[in-house]
Amino acid sequence: MEGDICDPDRAAYPRIFPPREAGESDHQPFERCVNFPVSVVLPAAGTGERTGLQTPKQFCSFLGRPLISYTIQAFERVSWIQSIVVVVLKENMALMTDIIQRFQHRKVRVVPGGSTRHRSICSGVLALGELEGEESHAAVQPKVVIIHDAVRPFVEADFLYKIAMAAKEQGAAGAIRPLVSTVIATTSEGYLDHSLDRAKYRASEMPQGFTYDVIYQAYQRCTESDFDFGTECLHLALQYCGVSAKLIEGPPTLWKVTYKRDLAAAESIIKETLSRSACVVTGASAQAVTLAGTLQKAARTWDMELNVIPDLKGDNGSYLLTEWNFILVSGSLPCLSEVEAILTDFKAANRAPLHPFVIVWVHLSSSDELSISRTMAEQVAIMDLASAAKLQNIFLYGIQIHQSKDAEHWERSVLRVTEITSALIRERSPALVGQLLQA
Amino acid sequence: MEGDICDPDRAAYPRIFPPREAGESDHQPFERCVNFPVSVVLPAAGTGERTGLQTPKQFCSFLGRPLISYTIQAFERVSWIQSIVVVVLKENMALMTDIIQRFQHRKVRVVPGGSTRHRSICSGVLALGELEGEESHAAVQPKVVIIHDAVRPFVEADFLYKIAMAAKEQGAAGAIRPLVSTVIATTSEGYLDHSLDRAKYRASEMPQGFTYDVIYQAYQRCTESDFDFGTECLHLALQYCGVSAKLIEGPPTLWKVTYKRDLAAAESIIKETLSRSACVVTGASAQAVTLAGTLQKAARTWDMELNVIPDLKGDNGSYLLTEWNFILVSGSLPCLSEVEAILTDFKAANRAPLHPFVIVWVHLSSSDELSISRTMAEQVAIMDLASAAKLQNIFLYGIQIHQSKDAEHWERSVLRVTEITSALIRERSPALVGQLLQA
Repeated sequence: MEGDICDPDRAAYPRIFPPREAGESDHQPFERCVNFPVSVVLPAAGTGERTGLQTPKQFCSFLGRPLISYTIQAFERVSWIQSIVVVVLKENMALMTDIIQRFQHRKVRVVPGGSTRHRSICSGVLALGELEGEESHAAVQPKVVIIHDAVRPFVEADFLYKIAMAAKEQGAAGAIRPLVSTVIATTSEGYLDHSLDRAKYRASEMPQGFTYDVIYQAYQRCTESDFDFGTECLHLALQYCGVSAKLIEGPPTLWKVTYKRDLAAAESIIKETLSRSACVVTGASAQAVTLAGTLQKAARTWDMELNVIPDLKGDNGSYLLTEWNFILVSGSLPCLSEVEAILTDFKAANRAPLHPFVIVWVHLSSSDELSISRTMAEQVAIMDLASAAKLQNIFLYGIQIHQSKDAEHWERSVLRVTEITSALIRERSPALVGQLLQA
Repeated sequence: MEGDICDPDRAAYPRIFPPREAGESDHQPFERCVNFPVSVVLPAAGTGERTGLQTPKQFCSFLGRPLISYTIQAFERVSWIQSIVVVVLKENMALMTDIIQRFQHRKVRVVPGGSTRHRSICSGVLALGELEGEESHAAVQPKVVIIHDAVRPFVEADFLYKIAMAAKEQGAAGAIRPLVSTVIATTSEGYLDHSLDRAKYRASEMPQGFTYDVIYQAYQRCTESDFDFGTECLHLALQYCGVSAKLIEGPPTLWKVTYKRDLAAAESIIKETLSRSACVVTGASAQAVTLAGTLQKAARTWDMELNVIPDLKGDNGSYLLTEWNFILVSGSLPCLSEVEAILTDFKAANRAPLHPFVIVWVHLSSSDELSISRTMAEQVAIMDLASAAKLQNIFLYGIQIHQSKDAEHWERSVLRVTEITSALIRERSPALVGQLLQA
């Protein structure tokens, strides 16, 4: 993607990766809380038939993680959501359990689903009802149930709050969006009959919220035909409980991953969100501090905020828990032990492996012969180190910048360091780990 | 995107980049032709207001080219389409003219547009009517006019054929798609009134086709209110000409680039399409031929077809006109003159710069001291060469593979060459050109 593409989505994804990790229950700053128990049902038993995917799309991965884990994370980081029931096909129970373990999800229970969307959601709702007896330490029967699609990973806490509050008040609430295309009625022979007035209609999206009683009763009362052919929970609430849902206009971030191209779109959003900041560690070298300052200035033009610190000790250690990108700048006597040290720090921090970490090791080098053969040795050493780090989902790259007294040459090199660093962080390419690039 | 994502779109984009270049009018193999004149109107005067983009999205670029140029290319490669009128805001006339020149579009005329969608389309239709007198050498007044969105770049020749034929027969025809969400009617207070039966409705998409007479008359007869607030041409044809459009279900490739994330999706489709094949040039070295054979085998597992040839002379020169990726494999006495030669060949081929070319220079190297200092010199030389090539939209990268008698070590290196080559071709990263990577 080029620099000249402006960014309407950017404002829309401010809290995808708040400083706190998924799974921690601390309140977000400014997070609005509900004061009643809320749980979530994520139907994920779809087979992806409609889109022709072999792997159902909720299990397709990007950046090393399945889509459904991103969606779970979106709910786990909301403090007032007490539990999440994921409904999957019986044959995917083991796969789903493995995903929960690998990405350290903590609020999730997996239950086997039915053969249709309504049957799966119903299984999830019933499972929530059983929570009280079975795991009374974990959760109480929810007042409100939020139903969401496993393939809409970018839902935000603010909107969930609105849905939960409206559901409690009205019995049912659902997200709507403006229609993107004109909706037309067709004759049985395939000709235009009439087109609808766009202003009077909306697309019904997810999430939706219901009081537990309403959604439970709706499923108790509905017919086999509803279970087999229906898709709209709001319709069941209206027909069987007389509850007319409150409709709330949602943001564009509610979009649904449907085609393979949407996975690329989701990946691009995650990559961009991960690339908004980096931590620059300079050590004590004056040259390194100067270079870091230049990088910091350049980074502003490519929309990345760099925090320059001397080391990761003391309070600075908290970056290990919040930052996904590290740039280590070494002075003229580079030594890979600095890289080894940060890798050890990472291991000690024991962070949930939600995304690949990026470490870019930038080192200043003189151009003499000694340095040349050292370079070759370094190339081997950094490749070995990177291969080991990759197993822990840490992507390590090197950039060598050659000192020069020619000001123009030096400026060009510094510019190249910034371009390469930016590209490495944005692209997160697994194939290029361990390379020692030249600036 | 990971290897475990399967690919429903793949089958859907078979002819995005046929062997022939855009702009050439030779018939595609199996292309079905219409025997009446067809022209196209592309309204592109939108300001992107709805999505909050600063640059209207039709002018946003990926892989160095604005979206609208991809859409124009989709029509230019259809032999039976005689001309394309692009309607833009007056202030974008110069920008659009520049795009047409830069990417060597040949069937396109730019006209200034109106303040609404219907006014812009009407301007385009009127401009087509003027063609006969003004440029009688170029085109005659079309029998059928196809109207399409500038932001739906993946429309295919086959579907255009269906629309054109149905339009000629019925007077009007339009693409439809199944509804992706339930459509609901809301009460004035924002509550659910009722939901529509999905089976009875469709989303109206683009392209649409009309006989010239129908679309011309529709715009002659419609009201100012239609011009100001309407959006649906099929509706005008029905209301003012009594023509009930034939509706044709289109493929998912008709999707519309709406949000920034859709630009990433479009980029991913283009990148993937560009990465389906590469040409491997080996020279006479036996070692190079062996390595090329190994690469060729490996490439099958990452869905890329490699054509191995000794050089680009004679018939093989045609690859310069059809292939976007070249892998040069050099024997143990590598010499950058091979790279220089291919760059000269590229220049001579004078191909429309529709996409960035990728050249990956793979060279076998021995590990002695002499080779080490040669490596440093090569690093400088390849960087200079790459910087110059980049100006011509050619991305040059190097990979050095060190000879080894240790079979395991050698295998690992070869595997790395394939991984890096695949990543370089797929990612087409401008920041990494000129790097000499280590396998």
